[in-house]
Amino acid sequence: MVTHMGLVGLGRMGSNMRERLRRAGIEVTGYDPRPEVSDVPSLAALVEALPAPRVVWVMVPAGEPTRGVVDELGTLLEDGDVVVEGGNSHYPEDQARAAELGERGIGYVDVGVSGGIWGLENGYGLMCGGADADVERLMPVFDALRPEGPRDEGFVHAGRVGAGHFAKMVHNGIEYGLMQAYAEGYELLTAKEDVVTDVHGTMKAWSRGTVVRSWLLDLMVKALEADPDLAAIDDWVDDSGEGRWTVDEAIDNAVPLPVISAALFSRFQSRQTQSPAMKAVAALRQQFGGHAVRPAE
Amino acid sequence: MVTHMGLVGLGRMGSNMRERLRRAGIEVTGYDPRPEVSDVPSLAALVEALPAPRVVWVMVPAGEPTRGVVDELGTLLEDGDVVVEGGNSHYPEDQARAAELGERGIGYVDVGVSGGIWGLENGYGLMCGGADADVERLMPVFDALRPEGPRDEGFVHAGRVGAGHFAKMVHNGIEYGLMQAYAEGYELLTAKEDVVTDVHGTMKAWSRGTVVRSWLLDLMVKALEADPDLAAIDDWVDDSGEGRWTVDEAIDNAVPLPVISAALFSRFQSRQTQSPAMKAVAALRQQFGGHAVRPAE
Amino acid sequence: MVTHMGLVGLGRMGSNMRERLRRAGIEVTGYDPRPEVSDVPSLAALVEALPAPRVVWVMVPAGEPTRGVVDELGTLLEDGDVVVEGGNSHYPEDQARAAELGERGIGYVDVGVSGGIWGLENGYGLMCGGADADVERLMPVFDALRPEGPRDEGFVHAGRVGAGHFAKMVHNGIEYGLMQAYAEGYELLTAKEDVVTDVHGTMKAWSRGTVVRSWLLDLMVKALEADPDLAAIDDWVDDSGEGRWTVDEAIDNAVPLPVISAALFSRFQSRQTQSPAMKAVAALRQQFGGHAVRPAE
Amino acid sequence: MVTHMGLVGLGRMGSNMRERLRRAGIEVTGYDPRPEVSDVPSLAALVEALPAPRVVWVMVPAGEPTRGVVDELGTLLEDGDVVVEGGNSHYPEDQARAAELGERGIGYVDVGVSGGIWGLENGYGLMCGGADADVERLMPVFDALRPEGPRDEGFVHAGRVGAGHFAKMVHNGIEYGLMQAYAEGYELLTAKEDVVTDVHGTMKAWSRGTVVRSWLLDLMVKALEADPDLAAIDDWVDDSGEGRWTVDEAIDNAVPLPVISAALFSRFQSRQTQSPAMKAVAALRQQFGGHAVRPAE
Repeated sequence: MVTHMGLVGLGRMGSNMRERLRRAGIEVTGYDPRPEVSDVPSLAALVEALPAPRVVWVMVPAGEPTRGVVDELGTLLEDGDVVVEGGNSHYPEDQARAAELGERGIGYVDVGVSGGIWGLENGYGLMCGGADADVERLMPVFDALRPEGPRDEGFVHAGRVGAGHFAKMVHNGIEYGLMQAYAEGYELLTAKEDVVTDVHGTMKAWSRGTVVRSWLLDLMVKALEADPDLAAIDDWVDDSGEGRWTVDEAIDNAVPLPVISAALFSRFQSRQTQSPAMKAVAALRQQFGGHAVRPAE
Repeated sequence: MVTHMGLVGLGRMGSNMRERLRRAGIEVTGYDPRPEVSDVPSLAALVEALPAPRVVWVMVPAGEPTRGVVDELGTLLEDGDVVVEGGNSHYPEDQARAAELGERGIGYVDVGVSGGIWGLENGYGLMCGGADADVERLMPVFDALRPEGPRDEGFVHAGRVGAGHFAKMVHNGIEYGLMQAYAEGYELLTAKEDVVTDVHGTMKAWSRGTVVRSWLLDLMVKALEADPDLAAIDDWVDDSGEGRWTVDEAIDNAVPLPVISAALFSRFQSRQTQSPAMKAVAALRQQFGGHAVRPAE
Repeated sequence: MVTHMGLVGLGRMGSNMRERLRRAGIEVTGYDPRPEVSDVPSLAALVEALPAPRVVWVMVPAGEPTRGVVDELGTLLEDGDVVVEGGNSHYPEDQARAAELGERGIGYVDVGVSGGIWGLENGYGLMCGGADADVERLMPVFDALRPEGPRDEGFVHAGRVGAGHFAKMVHNGIEYGLMQAYAEGYELLTAKEDVVTDVHGTMKAWSRGTVVRSWLLDLMVKALEADPDLAAIDDWVDDSGEGRWTVDEAIDNAVPLPVISAALFSRFQSRQTQSPAMKAVAALRQQFGGHAVRPAE
Repeated sequence: MVTHMGLVGLGRMGSNMRERLRRAGIEVTGYDPRPEVSDVPSLAALVEALPAPRVVWVMVPAGEPTRGVVDELGTLLEDGDVVVEGGNSHYPEDQARAAELGERGIGYVDVGVSGGIWGLENGYGLMCGGADADVERLMPVFDALRPEGPRDEGFVHAGRVGAGHFAKMVHNGIEYGLMQAYAEGYELLTAKEDVVTDVHGTMKAWSRGTVVRSWLLDLMVKALEADPDLAAIDDWVDDSGEGRWTVDEAIDNAVPLPVISAALFSRFQSRQTQSPAMKAVAALRQQFGGHAVRPAE
């Protein structure tokens, strides 16, 4: 039973999670390279501060940063300890990391964490992958972090190592599709102002009873309440990696993904000031039909 | 204030709505061509049974059936009465019907009704279009039908005649996109059984705290609970018209709709036993590359 | 056998066609509202100038203009004459026009004409719809306009009235897809300058022997020769109607059209300075994740 | 100047290429594991038979087979020799192979070869990547293989190692999009038999003068000539890797690829007997609307 754990990475997500864990009575020693937020001066000090067998939850950006922390933990921890990767690692990374740590007897559990800035109050949706014994031991931590309600509505042990981040990756891919679906509907509503005069009210009226009601819809309504024409927001949309991995994974498995890929490509398009492809189409139309093109500025 | 109204069409939706209205204390006289479920023998008898100024809610299939009922009501009703079109009419039909009835002083309000078979218990999401006075008069009816909670979370007066069905059309278009997004994610989860061993549990764990939580997700979980591999269900998916209208409308307004159109086309594909297009691609590959084709059975 | 015909509309297409017809020895009397290019002062004068049974080819913009000319011709022509609609009418318009003219014994043939500004020299690809006798009578005209080579490689009697414009509509829909495919490939080539250092040369090398060789590719190469980075061309792409009709038609017939619709939507996107949909996605990301949005300028 | 070269892999492509090279006066020693078609008994014997500095063209399936042959050649060849990878390797593989061989002074040129079974007669479209000196030395080989006509219309030195296969990958991605565009148009033509009565004739009439004329269109016409309804061909379409790499590459570079990805996904769909995604959509519709589903067989 975990009563005292380590947490590496005290950014927006990490510090909120520490707070939620502490509220649930779990002692958390946090480490972050920024001394002003860190409880200990180093990873080594963190490991030293924890009772064995240790649990260290890593909550730093995916890629290099996560790799660096997990590698260093591998040299500091010992047989029987467990590393929990709570960031957004690509699942094959988990499998590689787990194999390396496993050689030294260190357990590895990957956890996909959903909920964003709302998680502190609402709890976090959790999907994890790993060995039964490791997951079992971590249950008090998961129970503290997950939303209230039945455990299986906010937590799953989805499979072996990698399954947590695989599930989170798919979750995010779905999220891309859902957001784009609402966004397309929103745009169509705004395109007929002569008919639909209350777009915000229309989407708000979908909040209860309708088939499309959801948390994302609630957020859309909130956004329109704050800024009815979204006038202050540019149409530039970033993407954070999981959407790309989802489509890559689908391609590897010959799974058709027309909606999620379209949502991803719409984000790419949103970030282009000039589309080379559409310049090419304009050039072609000019070539065959003498159609006017707009000169570039 | 409406205390007694007429309701034409007592199918699954209509009879549930009658029941919900009655529970709210509104007297409802229902008409249906099937005598065994009808309260009166004819439309004329229905009109006769209602106190003037009358309210008649029409809840029959879109297209010919709705047109027929509304036209007949036009000859039976009188100045000051109101027809409510609660089916899934295409919004230009509403505008044409309203203009015709308006010439005889009969009001017309179109209402998009969402909620399906769950509406009797949960209430129906309502979007309406029409004149302020007509809508105002109908508020007791709308309040009885809509879900509990703040009025504006389950009801909207979206604009002039047509706005209700326009909003419902867009709602359904969004619904296509949402369903397809979950469905693609589901398929990808099932494609990696070596990693994710509990697909049902994974989607259930998204029910609380996650970004993708929604009523449709809850239904997906229910469906997987009943049939974990969806083994009993064929991959044949119908479409009911609003999805098509949504894409048509987007094209008319030069609104890009990549996700909703992809969801619609996926339904078309699901119903084809042989795709002429893919036969053509196979034929082309054979022509240029000598690639093997599969002989048709 | 037609040796003298009328031609209404002497814009870029019409005047080139008149020239090609005259080179082939067919006498052409042209009418255009602009007196400086017209051979006769009015439609009535045109009809008067032609030997009966008359052939009048209409080559004016689709929609109102074509409708106006055909309606007026209907009052001027007589039993046995034939109207040829060579513009880009929507095929149901052809069917309606033909029925009206048919009541007065006037024939109607719709012709889809492809080839753009290159048609004068190369000849025009022709697809027509109409009665056998009418088409038979027009063969000398079609033979003059179509490219050299076997007749069936540049001309088809595709079916009854409407078939010519239906075929041309589908032709243009395909064209959208082809152009977008080359354009996407072009963009991807330009995205890896560290690997592919000669994009123009690469596309030029596809001109012979490859699977993707085509006339559109030749035009792409020409465009890149003139402006290797397409620096002078804005990424704004118009659409002229047939692409929209193609997708509408597909939806009516439950035909999946993922590629052609994606090409159409890409054009819509190219013309947006701010995408309401992507503003909505940005707003949603900000709501749930506290992700930074770019402020609109 | 190459006058005698080695060729590894004498399958359909390789044996045709050997024939075309020999016709051009280049001596070719071919090796294939199948003794009945091979000129020498082993790779070692091949290397021994060639004059130094040697040129060995590898034409075997991508992946393991190519890797195996190139690795073995690396141990047999010597400083100044050149390996030409003419298969469909993924371009990062080329970059890795070239680096390894380069350490031993062996050159590496990657060549994308297009033309399929038609290449023997028409010549092959060639795109290559590598060092200037290596490419220069190979020009007689490239000139023998490429189509007649100006060199730059059938050959390009596209960039450094990897550029040839990168260009070929994009070529194939475009090819997917082009084929799907024609295929969608074909399907739409067949969907309106009451209007368009001659689908084959319509597509054949596009062969000259039209905007959509191309070699792929010619092949489509050929296919329809042989089998007007494509009745003998199943709608099952394979994909060979380059289409997947193209979309993966686009995702890595944030290049929107809606058309090419849609074409790829259509192939995936064509191979599914039951779509898990569409089963899920059917299940959802049943859940919320009581819509009928088809029982799986």
